[in-house]
Amino acid sequence: MQNPITVLFEPYGRRVKVKIGTSIFEAARRAGIKLRSGCGGKGLCGKCKVIIADKKAVENLTEAERSHLSLEEINAGYRLACLTILKTDATVMVPEESRVGALKIQAFGEELLPPLDPAVKKYYITLTEPTLSDAKPDMERVVSMLERNYGLKGLKMEIGVLRELPRLLRKANWKVTVTVLNDERIIAVEGGNTTDKLLGLALDLGTSKIVGCLVDLNEGKTLAVSFIENPQILYGEDVISRITFVSDNRGKLKILHKQLIDGINEVINHACAHAGASHRNVYEAVVVGNTAMHHFFLGLPVKNVAVSPFTPVLRKPVNVKPREMGLRIHPEGNIHALPLIAGFVGADALADALSSRISESKELSLLLDVGTNTEIFLGNSEDMLSCSCASGPAFEGSHVKHGMKAITGAIEKVSINPDSDFDVTYETIGEAAPLGLCGSAMVDVLAELFKWGIINNRGRFNVKLKTPRLRTFDGNTEFVIVWKDESGTGRDITVTQKDINEIQLAKAAVFAGCWILMKRKNVQLNDLHQVLIAGSFGSYINPENAKIAGLVPDVATEKIKFVGNAALSGAKMALISKEERKKAEELSKKIRYLELATDNDFPIEFADAMFIPHKNLSRFPRVKNKLKILG
Amino acid sequence: MQNPITVLFEPYGRRVKVKIGTSIFEAARRAGIKLRSGCGGKGLCGKCKVIIADKKAVENLTEAERSHLSLEEINAGYRLACLTILKTDATVMVPEESRVGALKIQAFGEELLPPLDPAVKKYYITLTEPTLSDAKPDMERVVSMLERNYGLKGLKMEIGVLRELPRLLRKANWKVTVTVLNDERIIAVEGGNTTDKLLGLALDLGTSKIVGCLVDLNEGKTLAVSFIENPQILYGEDVISRITFVSDNRGKLKILHKQLIDGINEVINHACAHAGASHRNVYEAVVVGNTAMHHFFLGLPVKNVAVSPFTPVLRKPVNVKPREMGLRIHPEGNIHALPLIAGFVGADALADALSSRISESKELSLLLDVGTNTEIFLGNSEDMLSCSCASGPAFEGSHVKHGMKAITGAIEKVSINPDSDFDVTYETIGEAAPLGLCGSAMVDVLAELFKWGIINNRGRFNVKLKTPRLRTFDGNTEFVIVWKDESGTGRDITVTQKDINEIQLAKAAVFAGCWILMKRKNVQLNDLHQVLIAGSFGSYINPENAKIAGLVPDVATEKIKFVGNAALSGAKMALISKEERKKAEELSKKIRYLELATDNDFPIEFADAMFIPHKNLSRFPRVKNKLKILG
Repeated sequence: MQNPITVLFEPYGRRVKVKIGTSIFEAARRAGIKLRSGCGGKGLCGKCKVIIADKKAVENLTEAERSHLSLEEINAGYRLACLTILKTDATVMVPEESRVGALKIQAFGEELLPPLDPAVKKYYITLTEPTLSDAKPDMERVVSMLERNYGLKGLKMEIGVLRELPRLLRKANWKVTVTVLNDERIIAVEGGNTTDKLLGLALDLGTSKIVGCLVDLNEGKTLAVSFIENPQILYGEDVISRITFVSDNRGKLKILHKQLIDGINEVINHACAHAGASHRNVYEAVVVGNTAMHHFFLGLPVKNVAVSPFTPVLRKPVNVKPREMGLRIHPEGNIHALPLIAGFVGADALADALSSRISESKELSLLLDVGTNTEIFLGNSEDMLSCSCASGPAFEGSHVKHGMKAITGAIEKVSINPDSDFDVTYETIGEAAPLGLCGSAMVDVLAELFKWGIINNRGRFNVKLKTPRLRTFDGNTEFVIVWKDESGTGRDITVTQKDINEIQLAKAAVFAGCWILMKRKNVQLNDLHQVLIAGSFGSYINPENAKIAGLVPDVATEKIKFVGNAALSGAKMALISKEERKKAEELSKKIRYLELATDNDFPIEFADAMFIPHKNLSRFPRVKNKLKILG
Repeated sequence: MQNPITVLFEPYGRRVKVKIGTSIFEAARRAGIKLRSGCGGKGLCGKCKVIIADKKAVENLTEAERSHLSLEEINAGYRLACLTILKTDATVMVPEESRVGALKIQAFGEELLPPLDPAVKKYYITLTEPTLSDAKPDMERVVSMLERNYGLKGLKMEIGVLRELPRLLRKANWKVTVTVLNDERIIAVEGGNTTDKLLGLALDLGTSKIVGCLVDLNEGKTLAVSFIENPQILYGEDVISRITFVSDNRGKLKILHKQLIDGINEVINHACAHAGASHRNVYEAVVVGNTAMHHFFLGLPVKNVAVSPFTPVLRKPVNVKPREMGLRIHPEGNIHALPLIAGFVGADALADALSSRISESKELSLLLDVGTNTEIFLGNSEDMLSCSCASGPAFEGSHVKHGMKAITGAIEKVSINPDSDFDVTYETIGEAAPLGLCGSAMVDVLAELFKWGIINNRGRFNVKLKTPRLRTFDGNTEFVIVWKDESGTGRDITVTQKDINEIQLAKAAVFAGCWILMKRKNVQLNDLHQVLIAGSFGSYINPENAKIAGLVPDVATEKIKFVGNAALSGAKMALISKEERKKAEELSKKIRYLELATDNDFPIEFADAMFIPHKNLSRFPRVKNKLKILG
């Protein structure tokens, strides 16, 4: 190849060599990265947007691109991959919107849906024109018709709607669709019959990801799920660093608030574009998130959440108008933030508890939402106890050498064959060439390495083991999961001694939390009816390995269930059903909170849980048995 | 006098000659104009503010003045009269706030006040600091204390309050005062005990005047009344011209809306300054105004109010947040606009009906609110009928050669002595030198001129009459009320033939309206228990002359009562009592509206009422009798 140039595709970290004059679209294809496209790379659909950091690396912007990109996008370095010709080495960022198959995140069970009864409803009415003998005011004309036809009494109308009403009624020839919130307030009047356009948004504000789920409120159907990295990540990977950055400073709080809102608006834009919907037909958003994200979202001071006694500003549900928050849904609609439980058990955890129905059964359930912070619930319809533990970002792909988020190319399952020279079998998201390890793979790695004696119960590599996959350079030992010729990055994908330690820290925190809740409620292993695992990595985890790794209590494997993004499910349930919203508020009052920071047993429990699966093997009878069988 | 200079004081139109080096305060004293002062002109109190158009006419601003004036005021040409030394001829504007005795407008009966039960209430509470064993969120801490101590349940808190709450509670050492609206929403939390600072504002938005009444909601006491000319006057003297200017144009509507809000904010500033209060302690405003002003205020499209079938946007009461309107009271407080009755019977008229209690008695009352537009009510507790008539701005001082508003220097009473060469006796507001005639004087003039044969029953001057007061130049006849040597303007104050006609048009419209209501309800003259006259000129009118002029039905004089600015009274009542607010809403539904524009009898009734007192003298039996006695 004459004068080859190298193109690096991010966030995949994949490199490819191509000739000068190649289009980015073609280079991506050769790198095995699929870009969205509706026209097959002919410059017609405008979907294969990419971001070029260095404008000099490519030929100038074409007229055809100008017509597909906004001025804002052009300034941000956006190009269409199919029309952008490479001149030199380049780094190409593939934004979320242009990736194919990356939305692994949306998994949640539609079958759990409660009966439809959303807070926003639409009514199509035909009015008679005013005359001198019936000069009833415009608003009363609308309101009395809704009372007559639908029994809605004492409806109020937003001032913003009143200001447009006279013009609209006359332009629409007195045939209009009225959107009503909580059978109380008229939040929109639209010309003609628009009853089929009634959308809502369920939003999960995670520390690392913002996920939005666009829902058709007439049918309860999910139309689109969209997510972005939390843009606040610039100010700290975890919420504590963000809170420290903000401290008592109103200006800094505004920055983080604004950034979050901008990010959410991006999610809304993606979701609406995907569903072919207008953001003005999204009338309500139900929002969940941990306490810090909840406060950032509402622009509430977060400082006290991070310092003892960890006091949030409020716990109750909050309703705010979208236009007061700058959220890009219908300006007169509603934002409903679900209630919290405590400083470190937020609305997202509450939504987990809601959607999993654990508080509606007499049987005891343990529910874990694993993330940078892991929330744990233990209880039943009689009593619920909760706690929160700092599990760190290892399961989210950070602080681990080849860790990555659960996007296309991430290894999600790993198994090791001890009989075939520790050969590794793996599965990747989107069946793409492997790029790194996501959370579920790390649990597998810990369990598999331990099961086959590659690490001991303290997590130390058995350096005496003879296999090319285990190697030591400069005193650093690592195990090769994927050889470079198979990997999508062109490098070996490995797990280091430091990685193992990070995973141990994470799993130890989670298990110690579970065990202390069981202790406080006097619950024995066999009293547990089910162990539910929520969180973005939950759906792909191997339950057997979760026990061997010592992440969760050692119950019968069939008792371990994965509930996916249960927080988003809970938000969606509260979005489509007022009854669920009421339940959420009752739950937030009912669930007791245990502060691990002041729990005397926690330090020792945490230390013991650093072992694999645990220092005290009698707590893991089933794993102990299995290990015996394996020898 | 060496080098005398001339100083013109506005809006009095009074000139005075003084020496160079005289202070404006001294010049005003010599001109007979009293300025407000708490220190007697020593530069200490900062109350004698005046506005100088030409800065070169006076010595430079002193340091002492700088300390009393805001930067905004300095830029607008404000000075302290006692510290400003004249250099050359000057024009001095005396702003409302510096005038003494000019607030004739506030007259309303405090004795009518309903029991105090305002929508906003304050509670002083002392909270315990959060601890790890009681980490209740800040909001819940406040709310649960209010529930425990005052039985307030399910209180919500404005997001704006939540955002400040954590900082405030800690700074105030957990001793705070909470302001609650409608036992529902927490609209403010203040450090320490501020329960004595609980203010409200009653606002009357007139076509020509904006009047604000600052009320202590703990005692129901009026602390200050302030008013300004309606700044919208630039876009038309009457509301129809303003509506025509705006038409369907959103931008123009915004201009008029903004101008009104700015004007109201000025009224609030004046009233707060006068009462030594902070605008942040004003938590609620109750607003009345005619339908057009009501719509302009709320930013609602007004076009349809002016074209058949005269449909307002709404009639119901409206609640809006001050910060959404830019109104300078507490941003999270409440603005309550009282309901309307119909396109031309607005919230001001409703407030008249409310404060006069006419709908609570079995006796029949006739109530008139006389202004550019005159609203009339006839009825009792069983039934109420209302109408509106275009009486024009004559009674407000416009379209009349020497007409003026009811401010200091305005002649408010006139009587003519036929035995002493038609000598005129008059009284002025503030006992100042006469500057012109206000509405009540015009009624006197019409009656007196007619009584003594100076005009006939068609309003034509009897030019044969021999008196120097009656004179004709170039075919224009006029009657001299005040000779120039007595007047404060240095010119004769006269009433012209054209003026007489304007007053006739105004009074004819009012009487025709009254008579048609009586006809429609089958009410005879003697069925009327009382005739109430509201409006800014109401308090000073001569009831006998009102009948002779043919302005009101000819009932026994003791049945005619003046209720002053009853609209402002009604607004104040609704401000200090939730019960009155409820009554207002019920009234707005109960009062029927009669459209005079489509009434077949109106044109002929109007034409007949142009006569003095009326074409059909049998309708004025008492006047007829009196005229007989006078011969």
